[in-house]
Amino acid sequence: MASIRRAASVAPTDVTIDDEFWNHWLETTRRGLLGHHYEQLEESGCLENFRRAADGAAGGFRGMWFADSDAYKWLEAASYVLASRDGSGSSPDLAPDSDLRRRIDDVIDLIAAAQAEDGYLNTYFALEEPEKRWTNLNMMHELYCAGHLIEAAVAHHRATGEQSLLSVATAFADHIDERFGDDIDGVPGHQGIELALVKLARTTGEGRYLDRARYFVERRGRDDRLARELERLEELGGYDPEDGGVASDAREVFYEDGVYDGRYAQDHAPIREQESVEGHAVRAAYLFAGATDVAAETGDNALLDHLERLWESVAHRRMYVTGAIGSSAHGERFTEDYDLPNDTAYAETCAAIGSVFWNRRLFEFTGRARYADLIERTLYNAVLVGRSRDGTEFFYDNRLASDGNHHRQEWFECACCPPNIARVLAALGRYLYATGGESDERCLYVNQYIGSSATATIGDTVVELDQTSGFPWNGEVTLDVEPATPTEFALRLRVPSWCEDVSIRVNGEAVPTALGDDDSGRNGERTDDGYLVIEREWDGDRVEITFEVPVVPVRAHPAVAADAGRVALTRGPLVYCLEGVDHDRPPHQYRIETGIKSDAETESSFDADYRDALLGGVVVVTAAATVPDLEEWDGKLYRPAAEPSRSLESVTAIPYYAWDNRAPGELRVWLRER
Amino acid sequence: MASIRRAASVAPTDVTIDDEFWNHWLETTRRGLLGHHYEQLEESGCLENFRRAADGAAGGFRGMWFADSDAYKWLEAASYVLASRDGSGSSPDLAPDSDLRRRIDDVIDLIAAAQAEDGYLNTYFALEEPEKRWTNLNMMHELYCAGHLIEAAVAHHRATGEQSLLSVATAFADHIDERFGDDIDGVPGHQGIELALVKLARTTGEGRYLDRARYFVERRGRDDRLARELERLEELGGYDPEDGGVASDAREVFYEDGVYDGRYAQDHAPIREQESVEGHAVRAAYLFAGATDVAAETGDNALLDHLERLWESVAHRRMYVTGAIGSSAHGERFTEDYDLPNDTAYAETCAAIGSVFWNRRLFEFTGRARYADLIERTLYNAVLVGRSRDGTEFFYDNRLASDGNHHRQEWFECACCPPNIARVLAALGRYLYATGGESDERCLYVNQYIGSSATATIGDTVVELDQTSGFPWNGEVTLDVEPATPTEFALRLRVPSWCEDVSIRVNGEAVPTALGDDDSGRNGERTDDGYLVIEREWDGDRVEITFEVPVVPVRAHPAVAADAGRVALTRGPLVYCLEGVDHDRPPHQYRIETGIKSDAETESSFDADYRDALLGGVVVVTAAATVPDLEEWDGKLYRPAAEPSRSLESVTAIPYYAWDNRAPGELRVWLRER
Repeated sequence: MASIRRAASVAPTDVTIDDEFWNHWLETTRRGLLGHHYEQLEESGCLENFRRAADGAAGGFRGMWFADSDAYKWLEAASYVLASRDGSGSSPDLAPDSDLRRRIDDVIDLIAAAQAEDGYLNTYFALEEPEKRWTNLNMMHELYCAGHLIEAAVAHHRATGEQSLLSVATAFADHIDERFGDDIDGVPGHQGIELALVKLARTTGEGRYLDRARYFVERRGRDDRLARELERLEELGGYDPEDGGVASDAREVFYEDGVYDGRYAQDHAPIREQESVEGHAVRAAYLFAGATDVAAETGDNALLDHLERLWESVAHRRMYVTGAIGSSAHGERFTEDYDLPNDTAYAETCAAIGSVFWNRRLFEFTGRARYADLIERTLYNAVLVGRSRDGTEFFYDNRLASDGNHHRQEWFECACCPPNIARVLAALGRYLYATGGESDERCLYVNQYIGSSATATIGDTVVELDQTSGFPWNGEVTLDVEPATPTEFALRLRVPSWCEDVSIRVNGEAVPTALGDDDSGRNGERTDDGYLVIEREWDGDRVEITFEVPVVPVRAHPAVAADAGRVALTRGPLVYCLEGVDHDRPPHQYRIETGIKSDAETESSFDADYRDALLGGVVVVTAAATVPDLEEWDGKLYRPAAEPSRSLESVTAIPYYAWDNRAPGELRVWLRER
Repeated sequence: MASIRRAASVAPTDVTIDDEFWNHWLETTRRGLLGHHYEQLEESGCLENFRRAADGAAGGFRGMWFADSDAYKWLEAASYVLASRDGSGSSPDLAPDSDLRRRIDDVIDLIAAAQAEDGYLNTYFALEEPEKRWTNLNMMHELYCAGHLIEAAVAHHRATGEQSLLSVATAFADHIDERFGDDIDGVPGHQGIELALVKLARTTGEGRYLDRARYFVERRGRDDRLARELERLEELGGYDPEDGGVASDAREVFYEDGVYDGRYAQDHAPIREQESVEGHAVRAAYLFAGATDVAAETGDNALLDHLERLWESVAHRRMYVTGAIGSSAHGERFTEDYDLPNDTAYAETCAAIGSVFWNRRLFEFTGRARYADLIERTLYNAVLVGRSRDGTEFFYDNRLASDGNHHRQEWFECACCPPNIARVLAALGRYLYATGGESDERCLYVNQYIGSSATATIGDTVVELDQTSGFPWNGEVTLDVEPATPTEFALRLRVPSWCEDVSIRVNGEAVPTALGDDDSGRNGERTDDGYLVIEREWDGDRVEITFEVPVVPVRAHPAVAADAGRVALTRGPLVYCLEGVDHDRPPHQYRIETGIKSDAETESSFDADYRDALLGGVVVVTAAATVPDLEEWDGKLYRPAAEPSRSLESVTAIPYYAWDNRAPGELRVWLRER
């Protein structure tokens, strides 16, 4: 089977973002990597673990047993920053010989020094239980850490061309490839190695890494190794006789009514027999991202079809309106179809990031707009909400309703989310453009409307792109297309699913468009699966696009109990919310008065206004709303249900990602409506 | 200060219940005490603990460290059964020389044998840590167990006139009275001893037990003993070096952000300075019940006024519509005003029972109808829901909304609730009638409309009462009043707060009544604070009362976020609910269509029908409702919020107490309405 990908993303190294909305997020990412994040690597003991392992010390490991991954994620994100050509307010200390570059090299030196002779690398086992390597695949995350090392190494190599970290990663990958299969027949409890090995195979051209990735994907769910490990934790790595440690955690999430339930780690059935996405949401997203890579690289259309059905089991039944996934705190996991509580929503930031990873791969394999569409929704809402506006505080889990007691924190003992946000944002350029991949199509996908310049190669022709975008506040986009020589190709412009009306001009001349309810009605020069397609010979042309960006209240499927009788306000890619600080009453007391044509006292429309002094500049949505009068409730908790008298007021909704950046207060995404 | 009580409850030994609704509940209580409950005392090891302690054994204690209280609660409830004159289907094995009587005596013998020479009695400490008695007042519950022992002893003495258990209890009470105050200056972490000591004082006439009760009430919140204990748990009783045991539990509930917070055990301030009811709901109810007793017995009107304000802090801001209290599972506790979530409602059965205990005392002190009213609501809803219809399964915590995964269980490791239900129901007669107490008023209160015969003494006149009642299904009540000799007194008939219209005839002649919105409009011959008062010379008269029992949808205060835009259906004293088994769709999908006069397709009224084959016979409430059509949602989880098309159906609501007695399914008390 040969590699088949309909689309190939333009690499982040070939994209320079310069965007009014995103520059702030990229700048805080860069500053965070140099400052807050790096300090945490020292303070948490993560770097010290590597130093001690390099010194051959014993004991004294600090942090979670998979803390090595924090350093690897930092390296990966920092490498993207090194590689970026961004002109968006870079500070002097980001120069090539900058502090960042020196720190990267220092950390790589530490890691290389900590690696064992045989290529194995894990500071927990080096310091604490060297004899128990690879005994507890389920919970000890050696392969998960290896995956993050490989991802960091590939990013560093692509950014610098250097081998310093890549050689460490390949040595470890070779060790893994040697040990696994015959010697150790098993899969990791936490995935991540799969997609990493595919990256390594692409970077090095070594097919055996792809084969090993495929092994990890296909082997899963085929034996009872993970279950057996749980039965004899006392003999395995990570077991702490004092408090059970890893063991008690593991039993809590893997046992259902006393019986092993492999769904937590997607170990309940072979991947091709899984009917829905189950279990720990980050594990699931990483697994299916890796599986999509394997399917793409091996041309396995049957597996791809199955993965697209699995995606539907999430996107159509188990996803928050923000794109967030994994509704339950217990096991950080998926539960049942339509079980999407708001006030207890877990919606882990890392799971949303994992979903972005998986959707990029599904897009590349299929060229389908729905995956790029979900990336947009997830980035603007479920990912950005994970970090405070100033970049120093983080949500690990994300409520969609709160009484005001849920707040971002500076860091976490399990510090997965902060560096994960850094690595997805530092490589944001990856999601904007794609070319025809291994299909024969001469085309250029524009998936995200983010101000940027980029270099893409279509056939043999280098094409320079320059985009300006008003997203997410308005739908005005210009795209300058400058091929090195005149060349024919299809420009595929994604029409976001929230957009019902779009107009396009090329060099000032209107292109006929007619968007209807379904794809068949979306006509540019021709339409294809969510894309307006303009096929012509390009020779230094300007495309101007206007997407209509109305406020759209959305409802959830009637089976979602938590959202019954409620609407969520959206505008463009953004989900909006009410926050206590903007209102005299707690947000839950407001009832949106929409669509009441017959009542002169209330209005049926929404207003949208840009406020540059608010939260770094946001469009707020205001709406007519009523609140119950309180006087008649004095001293009463319950009373007969005559319709209580209500007063007309208005509500001010802000983008969901921006909540909890001001005074603490109640949060509501889903609003009652008349 | 002299004892002041406006009303004195007619003792359960003087009331025989024979009621179409309640006979079933009393009969299952009796059977449960002989069967299921007693078996659990053996199976759990509770009785074995006493046997081993009596034998002077060491080690081997089984169950929770306060398991002794299970036996005491069983004894108390069983004593009420012994004492009852109920003719409602008593089975032969309940005769005076019955199995029950023999078992009671056997258990008392065991307990007496386990008592130490000095009167101390606690099998955990006897078996496990004899040298650590009274070191951990906060968590080890020796005083709590002593309270239950005393309550059982008083009940047994009143039922049989025997001293066998009372002498055990007085010996322990004397030991406590001797040790506490000077030697040990402190209060228990879990209350219960306070109200028990008042009972013992009344039964024995020994004032020092009342003084000691007052000490425990007044001492609380005045020092940092409970806090200091938590800081040195390692030295105290109950600390288990293996897993922390009691210690880790304690730290979880007592520490807020690392700082001791005494609210969990109402230890944050002296009782007279507490502004609201805080902390663990059962602890709070037991404390304030005991405090009300102390206030009543000592004529402390200032404390009573304060307790009535504390009651309002619960009843007006922190109580479910069922009467249940304590909304959070974390700490089984009160949280904040209006924080009453439905799907995570803790609403412990024992807390509702504690509330009944407290409210009976507040009623006796004040003669106010609002306390009897809340007893009615709490018994029919928050207490009865705690037990399955067949009497064999129990809710410890009670949701008001569930997706169908919350079910009654056969027993609990912490088995507080099942025997608590038994002891409140076995003494149900206690709540029906009262006389003028230590006030000079010649009156008879009728607080609960439950079929029964009773003997009350007004002044020197013995009055026989005979009541028939259609409650809760209809409001037809007859009351035959037969004094031994003609005598004048006021018959005080409680008009339930849910009743807007009542008619009364005495010997066939109408008594003028006019109920308005407030008490001033409620006129019989005269009205007083929720009671219709008929003052006359009684000489073998029949009073016939018809309370109107309409279906009343109620709303919650706008500050209750969980109930915003919803109504709860009530009818008479009952709160209703929708259960999945009665509906084609999950209940959350229905929207009640009430009060829509202009829409010909929908109805604005409710129907109520008695169905004798359903759940032992219940009145169901049916209402017009609509559900969204599902076809238009195929493959969609979210979509723009055009009002979805809806189909007219109807819903069938059953009494809340009766839910989860059939096929598992979704539960909703609070229903969306148009």
